This record gives sequence, C-alpha cells and structure tokens, in this order.
Amino acid sequence: MSYRELKEQVFEANMELHHRKLVVYTWGNVSQIDRDKGVVAIKPSGVAYEDMKVDDIVVVDLDNNVVEGKMRPSSDTKTHTHLYRHFESIGGVTHTHSTYATAWAQAQQPIPCYGTTHADYAYGDIPVTAVMSDEQIKRDYEEETGVQITDCFKDRSPVETPMCIIAGHAPFTWGKDAAQSVYHAVVLEEMAKMAYLTRTLRPDVQPLKQAIIDKHYLRKHGKNAYYGQN
Amino acid sequence: MSYRELKEQVFEANMELHHRKLVVYTWGNVSQIDRDKGVVAIKPSGVAYEDMKVDDIVVVDLDNNVVEGKMRPSSDTKTHTHLYRHFESIGGVTHTHSTYATAWAQAQQPIPCYGTTHADYAYGDIPVTAVMSDEQIKRDYEEETGVQITDCFKDRSPVETPMCIIAGHAPFTWGKDAAQSVYHAVVLEEMAKMAYLTRTLRPDVQPLKQAIIDKHYLRKHGKNAYYGQN
Amino acid sequence: MSYRELKEQVFEANMELHHRKLVVYTWGNVSQIDRDKGVVAIKPSGVAYEDMKVDDIVVVDLDNNVVEGKMRPSSDTKTHTHLYRHFESIGGVTHTHSTYATAWAQAQQPIPCYGTTHADYAYGDIPVTAVMSDEQIKRDYEEETGVQITDCFKDRSPVETPMCIIAGHAPFTWGKDAAQSVYHAVVLEEMAKMAYLTRTLRPDVQPLKQAIIDKHYLRKHGKNAYYGQN
Amino acid sequence: MSYRELKEQVFEANMELHHRKLVVYTWGNVSQIDRDKGVVAIKPSGVAYEDMKVDDIVVVDLDNNVVEGKMRPSSDTKTHTHLYRHFESIGGVTHTHSTYATAWAQAQQPIPCYGTTHADYAYGDIPVTAVMSDEQIKRDYEEETGVQITDCFKDRSPVETPMCIIAGHAPFTWGKDAAQSVYHAVVLEEMAKMAYLTRTLRPDVQPLKQAIIDKHYLRKHGKNAYYGQN
Repeated sequence: MSYRELKEQVFEANMELHHRKLVVYTWGNVSQIDRDKGVVAIKPSGVAYEDMKVDDIVVVDLDNNVVEGKMRPSSDTKTHTHLYRHFESIGGVTHTHSTYATAWAQAQQPIPCYGTTHADYAYGDIPVTAVMSDEQIKRDYEEETGVQITDCFKDRSPVETPMCIIAGHAPFTWGKDAAQSVYHAVVLEEMAKMAYLTRTLRPDVQPLKQAIIDKHYLRKHGKNAYYGQN
Repeated sequence: MSYRELKEQVFEANMELHHRKLVVYTWGNVSQIDRDKGVVAIKPSGVAYEDMKVDDIVVVDLDNNVVEGKMRPSSDTKTHTHLYRHFESIGGVTHTHSTYATAWAQAQQPIPCYGTTHADYAYGDIPVTAVMSDEQIKRDYEEETGVQITDCFKDRSPVETPMCIIAGHAPFTWGKDAAQSVYHAVVLEEMAKMAYLTRTLRPDVQPLKQAIIDKHYLRKHGKNAYYGQN
Repeated sequence: MSYRELKEQVFEANMELHHRKLVVYTWGNVSQIDRDKGVVAIKPSGVAYEDMKVDDIVVVDLDNNVVEGKMRPSSDTKTHTHLYRHFESIGGVTHTHSTYATAWAQAQQPIPCYGTTHADYAYGDIPVTAVMSDEQIKRDYEEETGVQITDCFKDRSPVETPMCIIAGHAPFTWGKDAAQSVYHAVVLEEMAKMAYLTRTLRPDVQPLKQAIIDKHYLRKHGKNAYYGQN
Repeated sequence: MSYRELKEQVFEANMELHHRKLVVYTWGNVSQIDRDKGVVAIKPSGVAYEDMKVDDIVVVDLDNNVVEGKMRPSSDTKTHTHLYRHFESIGGVTHTHSTYATAWAQAQQPIPCYGTTHADYAYGDIPVTAVMSDEQIKRDYEEETGVQITDCFKDRSPVETPMCIIAGHAPFTWGKDAAQSVYHAVVLEEMAKMAYLTRTLRPDVQPLKQAIIDKHYLRKHGKNAYYGQN
C-alpha cells in the first residue's frame, strides 16, 4: 500500500468518527499501520475535523519519528505505536472521549457484560486500567498510557476484546484496520450507554451467564460463526 | 400477494427502523408473513441498511428453508418463524437492540405500566422472559429464544401486548404486518425510556391503577374505541 | 378572525410541536379558541403530522359539537374545552406526552422550582393532579381530566403557572394563543429534564429560595418587566 | 477594530451557540470587548436566534450605557461588564442555560474534575457560587451575579478555569474572545454531562489525582504545551 492510500484510509476513518458524532471538537484520533513498511498514519494534533484534508494526515515510524507530513502528529501517537508494537494482530487504533465510555473510565470501573449486544463484540467485561502512578506520569505519559492498556491484556486476547478504558481518561479501541477500530468505538459507546442504564436501573444486576456469552461471541466469531454473509 | 410485493413491504419496514434511528449498524431485523403462501420475508444477515436493496430480502418457509433469495437470512430467523407458528393472529415481527428497551432486558425486569402512554399500546406490564437454561442454549439458541417468548404468553394475549423483552438480550415486537411491528418497536423504546426515568426519579412509584389501564386501552382498541378516524 | 385563519394558526402550532420533536407519532394536539365566536379549532384525532393539512383541523363549539370539518376532533377535545371554559384568560392549549414531563407525571410528583430557568416561566412548582377516582373514569374521562387540572388551580393563577402535569398521564400547557401554548410545552420539557437531572444528582436538594423566584418571574412578567424588547 | 467588525464577531459567536444546540429559544447570550475603545458588543434581549441580524447587536460601554444600536441589550449585560472590569485578561463572555451544566448549578454543587477531558480545559473543579442573599437580590441582581462569580475567583485564576456555575441559575464561561467563550460553553456542557454520569454511576468516586490534572492541563497550556500545531 502506498503512503497515499494509507493516508486516505486513515482520513476516511477519522471523518467517520466525526460523522458518527463520537467526537466533540478535536477529541479523538484514528490511526492505521502498514506492517510491511513499518509505518503508521495518524491524525494531526488539534486539527478540526471540518478543516482536515488527506494531506494533513501524518506518517510516523514505530519509534514515533515523522516519515511524511508537515504537521505534528496526534499528541497520543506514542500510545498508538505502543499498541501496534505489542498487539501484533491489530491494524487500526481509535481513541475518543465518547460520553458514556468516558463516564465508565472516570468511574474507574470495568464495563460488565450485561447482555448479548456486548457479548457479540467483546468476550467478557471491558477492562479498565489502573490509575497511573506518579512515576509513570513523569516518565512518558503517552507511552505509559499504552503500557497501562497492554498490562490489562496480559491474560486476555486483544482480538477477543478489542477495547479498553483508561481510568480517569477515556477509551481506546482497535481492529484489523482503521475502519474496524472506529466501528468498535461506536459499538463501545452504545454498550457503555446500555450498561449505564442497566446499572442505574438495577444496581445489583448480575452479568450475563457465561454460556450465553460463549454462544453469542461464537455466533459471530471463529470457525463456526454463522452471522453475516461470509 | 407476490413475493415481490412482500419483499418490498419488508424492505420498507426495515428501512423505517433505520430512519427512526432504532438500530446501530445491523442490530435489528423485520419480517412479514404471507399466511396463504406459508412464507416469511426477512432481512438478510449482517447487511448494512445503507447498502440493502429490495432483492436482498430473503423469503423462507416456516421451517426456515430459503425459498427465494441469494443471501443468508437473518440469524434470528428461527425466532421469527417460531412466533408466526405460535401467534396465529400476527403478520409482522421486529427485533431491535434499541437502547432503553435493551437496558430493561439486561436488568431482567418487566417494564411496569406507569402511565397512559404505555396503556394505550399494551395491556399491563411488558413481560421479560426467563434467562435461558444451559440446555436450551445448546439445543437451538434462536428457536429457544422464540420458546422463551411464547412461554410468557401462555396466560396473556399477544394481541393485547404486542411486545416482549428477552432477559439479557433485547426486545421483540409484532403486529398485523411488518409496518405495525416497527411502529410497536418505536413505541416500546419510548415507553421503556419513560419507565426508566420514572423508576430512577422515584424508585417506589406504583404502576397505574387498573381502571385507568382499562380505560386507555379500550379507548384505542376493541368495539367501542373512539380514538382516530375509523 | 375567520375559521380559515383560526385553522391555519392551529395547523402551524401543531406542526411546530412536530418540528420541535416533542411528539412521537400522533401523541399530542394543540388548539386555539376564538372567544368572540365561541369556537375552538383543534387537531383531528389520530392523524399523522406528516399527512395533516390545514383543512383537517376541526372546529368545535364549547360543548364539543363539530361546527366545521370532516374529521373527528382529538379524543382530548373535552379537556381542551373544559380549560377554555374555566380559564378565561387563555387562548391556546397544548397536550403532549413529551418524555421528561411525562416521567414526572408518571412519578406522580410536582416539578419543584430548582432554578431560574423554571422561575422565568412558572411561579412556583408545576402542580401534579390527583390520580383520577374510579367514579371519574366511569363518568366522562376526558372532561374529568380537565376537572383534575382546574382543581389544581383553585388557589393559584393559570397565567402565572401556564402548565400542569396529569398523574399517570402527561402534561397540558396553555398560553395567550396556540403558538404560546406550544412554546410553554417546549419550555416545560426542558424544565422537566433539568429537574430530573438535579434530583437524581442530589436527591436532598432544596427548591430555589422565594426571593429569587420572585425576582426572576417579575423580571420577565408584570408592569416592571425589563426582559426583551417591549 | 471597528464597531462593525466587533458586532460581526459577536453575531457569529451567538449563532455558533445556536448551531451547537446549546440554547433553547433565547436562553443565552455572548459578548466581546474591545479594550482599546472600552466597549462591549452583546446580543439584544429576547431576540430569537432565527431572526437576529448583525445590526441587532448592541454596543455598550463598561457602565452599561448603549453606545450603538436600536435594541435593548441582553438583560444580563451588567454581569458581562462586571466580568470584563474584574477579569482583565478576558475578551469574550458566554452565558447559557445548557442542560447538564444548569443541573449542577441547580444542585448547588461544584463540578469535580473526574477525568482528563475536564483537566484539559480547567484546572481543578468548576466552582459554584454561593446562593445570592436577599440583600443582593434587592440591590442590583445582574451586577450581583457578576459579584458572585468574581467572589469565586479571589484565590484562583480565571484563565486557568474559564468557567463558573451560578447556584440555582446556570453557567457563565469566558475566553480570549467571544468565539473562545462559546467554545468553553460547549466544553463545559460535555464535562458536566460526563460528570453527571460518573457521579450517578458511582456516587463515591474520587476526583482525578493531582499529578494527572497537572500533566493534562500543562500538556495543552503554558510554555511547554505540546498539543496542537503551535
């Protein structure tokens, strides 16, 4: 894939985030990796979606050096590249401050799997990171945000649960490419809203039983999936 | 009615669900039965509303065999046909994951009749199914979802209460045809939102008294109805 | 004013209710009185806003007899005419099932005056009616709904508080004409939403102190008002 | 800057408030100061956004005398000019009754800093004023509203926290010019919504730790800021 194609796909995925109304002003960014070339295309920092053009997308390498582009890349770039380095199967990453997912992040609680809407996309609860230590903050804040996320996935698969919420901050989602990571950001926000309503309606409600979680997840994923046209 | 006409009506009803913003991505499906021909037209599985065409609608018989169409029918088809086999008076079925109705389903609680908005469309509370047993899940998940619903209507009329919520899942609604089942899906979502707000505002609130439920239901339904132009 | 002009104003006010997204399907109706002629123009029963035309508006007298129009008037007509007979200063009435105002009605609680947004339009809390007795329901349901409202205003002015919520049902608002009654319906819904959020955020919050209620109400109303251009 | 330019900027900022759906009817107003000329341009009182023209914007001096314009200025003008006189670094002021920020004002509680969305724009909690005393109300209500705000900033910087909520009333925000004060009004409403959801989801949640507040605030503000393109 040429840089141009990569930048076009990242531009479209960023604009989709805007059209789905998941971002207020510039509060979000999407990237995609070209693993053959070892480069990542990402939204420029602080640029309004209404004004952004394909050529504003910045290409960086996995050490966060700008390879192509005149603008400064997203201030969250180090978190993106950390995820690409540690989650080898992913191709796209999205960060938003979408309202309900951010509320769960601020409440510093994982989002329980209360129903099949959730189970269709994520296997079990959506993990919340630990609060960052003072040392981490001083060291390299955006890199450490990535560390917080990958620490949550030491014993679980980032493919089975393509999303995470950062305590006191907001969500990150990922997928096979930029477009799918945006898709997961939209899904997460709706899951987070449903879970908020469920919890406030009945605080003592229990998560969905494991057998239904398995059934729904496997209905859409894996060898014997039978949802969709493929 | 020709297959073509049936498919057009089902297509329009599915698109209405999309226009009313009751579905995120592909999270919903509408069907309609032609009882003379013994066939059901239904949305294809996993197809985006933006891309769907009339010819993508799939026609199946009541044993879930595809009669016409190149695509795979909705993964929820067995639930739809179960309802058509057991509720003889209905002509259309809608399934959504609409936000507030799904929250009640996830809270595993029936939606109480708190007011006349509810009483105008459903006689008494909106039933919630039992949580599916492990055996049912293994047996035939989508067929058993239908069984869960019809089990709720052993002692009540599916005409008087054209809707049900599935514990840990989401709502199903029905009506005389596809269009009316969508109408009921829209009504249910608004009822569910009002009930959520009522319950969180005043957790000890009691349901509407029976005499008003009777009055409002009968104002719109039955021999002496006097709402509307007919 | 000719019947034609009266019907046009009532048509426009009904459509404004639709454009402001205060009604789902046909759940609302607006009327206006011509006191010289002793007639009221009102929305026809059960007609969709998308299909309604000026000539569908029905003109009735204060005894609810149709004076002009081919359609059946709103099933709530008797409530409207009751209000016109008892509140001599009003010229328009609006009924909706707007979401937050209906939630308060279902919770069977008055809406407290928590802030100046409320105090700018209504003097004190928004009263909620008693629940209707079985005898009233049997007698004449829609007429008795009017009685419920006027009973709330025995000791307060319908001009100072141009709105009321019916226990277990929904709101009615009024004003100098149809347009202003719709304006008050929009204001009430926003007030009801703000009050819901305030109460759930802090259940023990107290209403606004009387001196500020007086100040804000009188800033907009009465001889010494100084808000606006008149 | 000519009066014409000043009025155009204030007009555009007011219309942005309308387009961002932060105002119902006329419930909001934006102003901007020209410190060289000692004049403030502000929205006229009670004029609908749909009808407003650039020439309706009113120019007043810092003693609230009309310098140019045929209309009466916003009834909140004295609050605006009080802020310009006391906060010397600000250039624009916005007042709204946006839903969630107003709910916090009505709950008479400061908005805690629960996350980085908040910390990116305001340093610490958003202060709520005291409830106005009866004497203040009698003295000069709108001027005293300004006093209430400036009293909250005796020990904090209005640049670091460009917003405040008035107990029992609604928010004021400010910035380097009218446009930025509107930007802060949009940000505040989203912060207030996220904080409402966080608090109701988990009432005992603690504010964000100080080290992260410092990090995020300084990432966007001050000498070593590295967000955006400048």
